[in-house]
Amino acid sequence: MKIVMGAAALNAYLAEVFPQLNGSFSIEDVDEVRLAARLHVTEAHLRPGGTVSGPAIFALADLAIYGVILSRIGQVPLAVTTSASVDFLRKPAAGRDLLAVCRLLKLGRLLAVADALIRSDGSEPPVARASMTYAIPQK
Amino acid sequence: MKIVMGAAALNAYLAEVFPQLNGSFSIEDVDEVRLAARLHVTEAHLRPGGTVSGPAIFALADLAIYGVILSRIGQVPLAVTTSASVDFLRKPAAGRDLLAVCRLLKLGRLLAVADALIRSDGSEPPVARASMTYAIPQK
Amino acid sequence: MKIVMGAAALNAYLAEVFPQLNGSFSIEDVDEVRLAARLHVTEAHLRPGGTVSGPAIFALADLAIYGVILSRIGQVPLAVTTSASVDFLRKPAAGRDLLAVCRLLKLGRLLAVADALIRSDGSEPPVARASMTYAIPQK
Amino acid sequence: MKIVMGAAALNAYLAEVFPQLNGSFSIEDVDEVRLAARLHVTEAHLRPGGTVSGPAIFALADLAIYGVILSRIGQVPLAVTTSASVDFLRKPAAGRDLLAVCRLLKLGRLLAVADALIRSDGSEPPVARASMTYAIPQK
Repeated sequence: MKIVMGAAALNAYLAEVFPQLNGSFSIEDVDEVRLAARLHVTEAHLRPGGTVSGPAIFALADLAIYGVILSRIGQVPLAVTTSASVDFLRKPAAGRDLLAVCRLLKLGRLLAVADALIRSDGSEPPVARASMTYAIPQK
Repeated sequence: MKIVMGAAALNAYLAEVFPQLNGSFSIEDVDEVRLAARLHVTEAHLRPGGTVSGPAIFALADLAIYGVILSRIGQVPLAVTTSASVDFLRKPAAGRDLLAVCRLLKLGRLLAVADALIRSDGSEPPVARASMTYAIPQK
Repeated sequence: MKIVMGAAALNAYLAEVFPQLNGSFSIEDVDEVRLAARLHVTEAHLRPGGTVSGPAIFALADLAIYGVILSRIGQVPLAVTTSASVDFLRKPAAGRDLLAVCRLLKLGRLLAVADALIRSDGSEPPVARASMTYAIPQK
Repeated sequence: MKIVMGAAALNAYLAEVFPQLNGSFSIEDVDEVRLAARLHVTEAHLRPGGTVSGPAIFALADLAIYGVILSRIGQVPLAVTTSASVDFLRKPAAGRDLLAVCRLLKLGRLLAVADALIRSDGSEPPVARASMTYAIPQK
């Protein structure tokens, strides 16, 4: 399916609608097969022992999946997550960003579904797996 | 099953191990049937339109479920979420805290499972439903 | 919300639209708070060791959740499950039916969400927990 | 990770431990990256309108994921599914088998996690996505 918003357009839009994210996340690139997003890990995302918190991993997957949907349908501020499933697989590597690679599995008129694998930057084994459904508001 | 940590002990412990939470969450009460936890909603938890963000709802469910497990087994810092499923049901009411009511469904030697319903304080219809599995580290 | 199909009407309808179920499942009762459904366990539902198979437990939850939705909106043959999450908690008791108790968490115009706890008949600790989303076809 | 049971060995083992499956499912092939499994769709798996039932899709994913775990660790009859998440994406094509392609995401000492995409034989767009966690019994 054709890409209607690339990485630069997505980053500009996310900064506008989610100013609280405040540079924590960025879309790295998007093509017709996949979208990659980064969590710039800082102290605020860590749990004792140096692991990245579950909510921060959830937020990264949620943002990547929102991004992959918008990359195909354009700016839809009111698309909302209706369900999410996450498996936490391994402790993230200390001091590294997290990268989510996301694929769009369904883009219907009402519902879109995508999944993501999340890894520590530079490591192969996944830290988490997530899948989410978004409801797309009707005009 | 007997309660070994009550609400005050849980709050003290969570403040010690998760200082970043910084007063955002509190355990309201716990008994042998249920645990209630509160997200003190502030600007930082909101999305445009005044709705509480998905990651903040995830964090509340995660904390409540961690709390209900600790209430039975005591301080286990390294218990980790292994899987989570969340359904987002309704937009939270504007300007209200969120309350999670959580029940423990299984407490095995290795795995514990609990679920939670999350509501806007003072409203009956649930905002979200979550279930999570925790792995309990072996001594 | 008002009940528009009771247990007898639901059982007659399910027998008509799902003849393959062939008496394996029945709706026991339904009111404004909950619906109870039974899996009449036979050899065909068992795995080695006498445990009820995962797909049979999934089928019971799916049927109970479909039932609770129809109890409120009437006959909608083309409502379909869009997502499901199941936690398997304990081995079912040998030689006993399974009972699912289900509650409706959301009934929107497009999506309905319910969850269910499944127990061996006569036992308190749950065997499984399930939650499912159904898409409701638009007229 | 090294393959210790190939497709032929897995099929022989599954026929022995799950005789009720009775030829409905087969492992097509397995290598170090993926396992493919087939549901030989018959009348018994269908719902009105010719769609494959949700429980049959669940069963295919469950079997494929069990297979990919055994392909690495050998015969472990008592490995059990502890949690499952399934998204149903599209109506399967009429009169076609279903194929699950499965990847192992984590193989720990206690828990294994895998996911699967399920398609109608000969079609690209996925019919369903599933992820499951298995608990591996300790010797």
